[in-house]
Amino acid sequence: MADGSALMRNEDGIAAALGVLKQQFGERFQTGEAIREQHGHTTTWIANQMPDGVVFAQSTEEVAEIVKVCATHKVPIIAFGTGTSLEGHVNAPAGGISIDVSQMDKVLEVNSGDLDCRVQPGVTREALNTHLRDQGLFFPIDPGANASLGGMTATRASGTNAVRYGTMKDNVLSVEAVMADGTVIRTSSRARKSSAGYDLTRLMVGSEGTLGIITEITLRLQGIPEAISAARCSFPSVEAASKTVMAVIQYGLPVARIELLDTQVVRGVNAYSKLHLPEGPLLLLEFHGSEASVEEQAETFGMLAAEDGGSGFEKTATLEERNKLWQARHDAYWAMLAMRPGCKAVTTDVCVPISRLAEAVTTAQAKAEELNLFAPIVGHAGDGNFHASLLIDMDDEAETERAKVFVSWLNDMAISMDGTCTGEHGIGQGKRPYLVKELGAGTVNVMSAIKSALDPDNIMNPGKILPL
Amino acid sequence: MADGSALMRNEDGIAAALGVLKQQFGERFQTGEAIREQHGHTTTWIANQMPDGVVFAQSTEEVAEIVKVCATHKVPIIAFGTGTSLEGHVNAPAGGISIDVSQMDKVLEVNSGDLDCRVQPGVTREALNTHLRDQGLFFPIDPGANASLGGMTATRASGTNAVRYGTMKDNVLSVEAVMADGTVIRTSSRARKSSAGYDLTRLMVGSEGTLGIITEITLRLQGIPEAISAARCSFPSVEAASKTVMAVIQYGLPVARIELLDTQVVRGVNAYSKLHLPEGPLLLLEFHGSEASVEEQAETFGMLAAEDGGSGFEKTATLEERNKLWQARHDAYWAMLAMRPGCKAVTTDVCVPISRLAEAVTTAQAKAEELNLFAPIVGHAGDGNFHASLLIDMDDEAETERAKVFVSWLNDMAISMDGTCTGEHGIGQGKRPYLVKELGAGTVNVMSAIKSALDPDNIMNPGKILPL
Repeated sequence: MADGSALMRNEDGIAAALGVLKQQFGERFQTGEAIREQHGHTTTWIANQMPDGVVFAQSTEEVAEIVKVCATHKVPIIAFGTGTSLEGHVNAPAGGISIDVSQMDKVLEVNSGDLDCRVQPGVTREALNTHLRDQGLFFPIDPGANASLGGMTATRASGTNAVRYGTMKDNVLSVEAVMADGTVIRTSSRARKSSAGYDLTRLMVGSEGTLGIITEITLRLQGIPEAISAARCSFPSVEAASKTVMAVIQYGLPVARIELLDTQVVRGVNAYSKLHLPEGPLLLLEFHGSEASVEEQAETFGMLAAEDGGSGFEKTATLEERNKLWQARHDAYWAMLAMRPGCKAVTTDVCVPISRLAEAVTTAQAKAEELNLFAPIVGHAGDGNFHASLLIDMDDEAETERAKVFVSWLNDMAISMDGTCTGEHGIGQGKRPYLVKELGAGTVNVMSAIKSALDPDNIMNPGKILPL
Repeated sequence: MADGSALMRNEDGIAAALGVLKQQFGERFQTGEAIREQHGHTTTWIANQMPDGVVFAQSTEEVAEIVKVCATHKVPIIAFGTGTSLEGHVNAPAGGISIDVSQMDKVLEVNSGDLDCRVQPGVTREALNTHLRDQGLFFPIDPGANASLGGMTATRASGTNAVRYGTMKDNVLSVEAVMADGTVIRTSSRARKSSAGYDLTRLMVGSEGTLGIITEITLRLQGIPEAISAARCSFPSVEAASKTVMAVIQYGLPVARIELLDTQVVRGVNAYSKLHLPEGPLLLLEFHGSEASVEEQAETFGMLAAEDGGSGFEKTATLEERNKLWQARHDAYWAMLAMRPGCKAVTTDVCVPISRLAEAVTTAQAKAEELNLFAPIVGHAGDGNFHASLLIDMDDEAETERAKVFVSWLNDMAISMDGTCTGEHGIGQGKRPYLVKELGAGTVNVMSAIKSALDPDNIMNPGKILPL
């Protein structure tokens, strides 16, 4: 079952672990229903499955202690950062203990000479960037939510800057993690590159808490560019916009951001953010570099866009304008919600080779229309990743069913295009049925063999990623 | 034992496998001593350990067949591309079968719209770039040798372009591999990013044939830049050159190459390549971009270098000059050999955080002098990775012993600086004693658990990477 309901609760073990943890952690161990519910899944239509208790850990040593208690009693352990994941990652289908790392929120060191830093997992991306600003540095990965860096590491998150700066896999140098037996490991040195053995860093990045609990992360940083400018450009069709995106990538233009908003999103954003963007497919861009290079990038982009019928190309002149434009992009989620008040948004996350992006987006639009669903689309177009956000009246069973049909159809379509069902949200519970479809049983068996080897009792976030 | 001599030969199994493979592959299965020796390690002072037979495979299906035969008889399997690895990766300490993939040399597809391609493992990096040139594309990873892409994937190779384009881990989108039981898996879709389960792509990249045999690789490509220019700049000291490198990285200057040559190497290169470079620490650079951006990068570099006393900064004006300069860099190995005729070069490969680069290089120079060793240094300075190449008279036992002391000391020093014993060559046999020192027993135990889970009979390249 996708929701992990086939997993068995170990009642005796859970009771024993609750007793020990209460004694060890006192007030920092909570079992009230409200707090437990808040530590289950809350963001999408996936049902909430509460843990039996929540520990607020404050150090690696405490995490190791908790893991040892749970290992002794064979009780599930689920790491919790900010709870903003979208695929049920923090749910507890067989109960167990949620380790909340939000109090592990220290930036432990910043090595400005090496452009790296070491943080605890509860530091959020915004808190890190606030911490770094004075030193002229920033961390580029920006998922929609102000997620914790531990959670972002665990789900291999990305965001609007990935086209230039990569995803978490490209920006995590090393992690410290507590494994299923309570052992603490560090996966790599602080060298910028290494060929020393298996790449455990990247095995942990995206492992969704199923192999170990991440307790420290060493991150690559970037210098804040000398110049940043933003631009927007409208297109006669999604195909035309996608053609420009492909041209940009092939040209090697080092855009920092290239985001696609479809007509529905532009309409929503205009209404919500009081803008007057032309109602049609839109690309939003950001350029980073020296003053001259940013100028040149914008010019080159304008030239490439014109070839595909791009119009209304406009560079923002001031910081205020730039902020306004990107704020509108960041508010797109709320803008869409405001278009159908009372509805819940269910976000999809497919990613296809960019040569298939136009086809994927337009086919998805047509399918939504066919199913009578409202599904505005925003895309991290430079990566071929896009989110169709279904706005669903959850009280309307028929609509909810049609939405499920759409999600399933969309994932299958992406897979058929040699793409993925998840570009950046992860598998969690929600995408589990698609993993084998995407990668084949042999590949998933290898994942399961690794999981069994490192967590033989299946206590680390059971019921996520892998088949039961 | 580092050379794997504690591994036992399975004589009966080997005899049985030899018989079956002879029957199945006829002339494409060879057991002559010369060919077997050539398929063992030949490049450094690590002793040659021959396989018992060599199969020239021509397809994934054939590799799977060979693996199944070897799995049935519990016989070691060692993949062989071009044999240019430096740490004994292709040695057969317990005998077994070498699978030579050099006839699997097809570029299977190039998706120019997506900037990716799919190749067989025997394609060399130069062959791929020759194939791509007409389409305006290139593959940037360039280890010294014209290595096979399968071998480069297996060792997580990099080279002079890594500072800009990353290493193999950043440029492999997906691999197809034959696992220890003969199952063929593909690790990922062709999407530019994905959060679909464990990152098996990066687990295979750098696994040195110990988890599976790589039979296809999907690679990210780059467009050939509009403009390329090279430059050189001399410095009063290694410290001064390293300071400039740090400034370049912190500034975010997108240099494509920034290579350090120490005074000894400059001397050797001048003699070998008939150049007149000033005798002192030298940085060689390459800039990629638009005409204007390349011009601006060079100017900015000149400004940064001047602050640290850089002198003789000279941009190459012509393609011929640029080729001559980089040819000299590529010939550095031969230039060094020519400085001590009859000697063997033993190359080290440490990588440290770049803030420690100056200290690491100068301490290494002092240690070599103290041990009366000739050890010229070239470095991929932008990554903090450098190679001290010891030129050793292998007939001089005392010198050879001193060289071993140096290598061990150097690896320990890099590890003490939170660096790695291997930036790009891999662990193989030669670096096995350092893996635990670098990452700790807990981390290496996790690697061993993965190895045991995926290859329970230890037939995939046994005696490499992990403790016996």
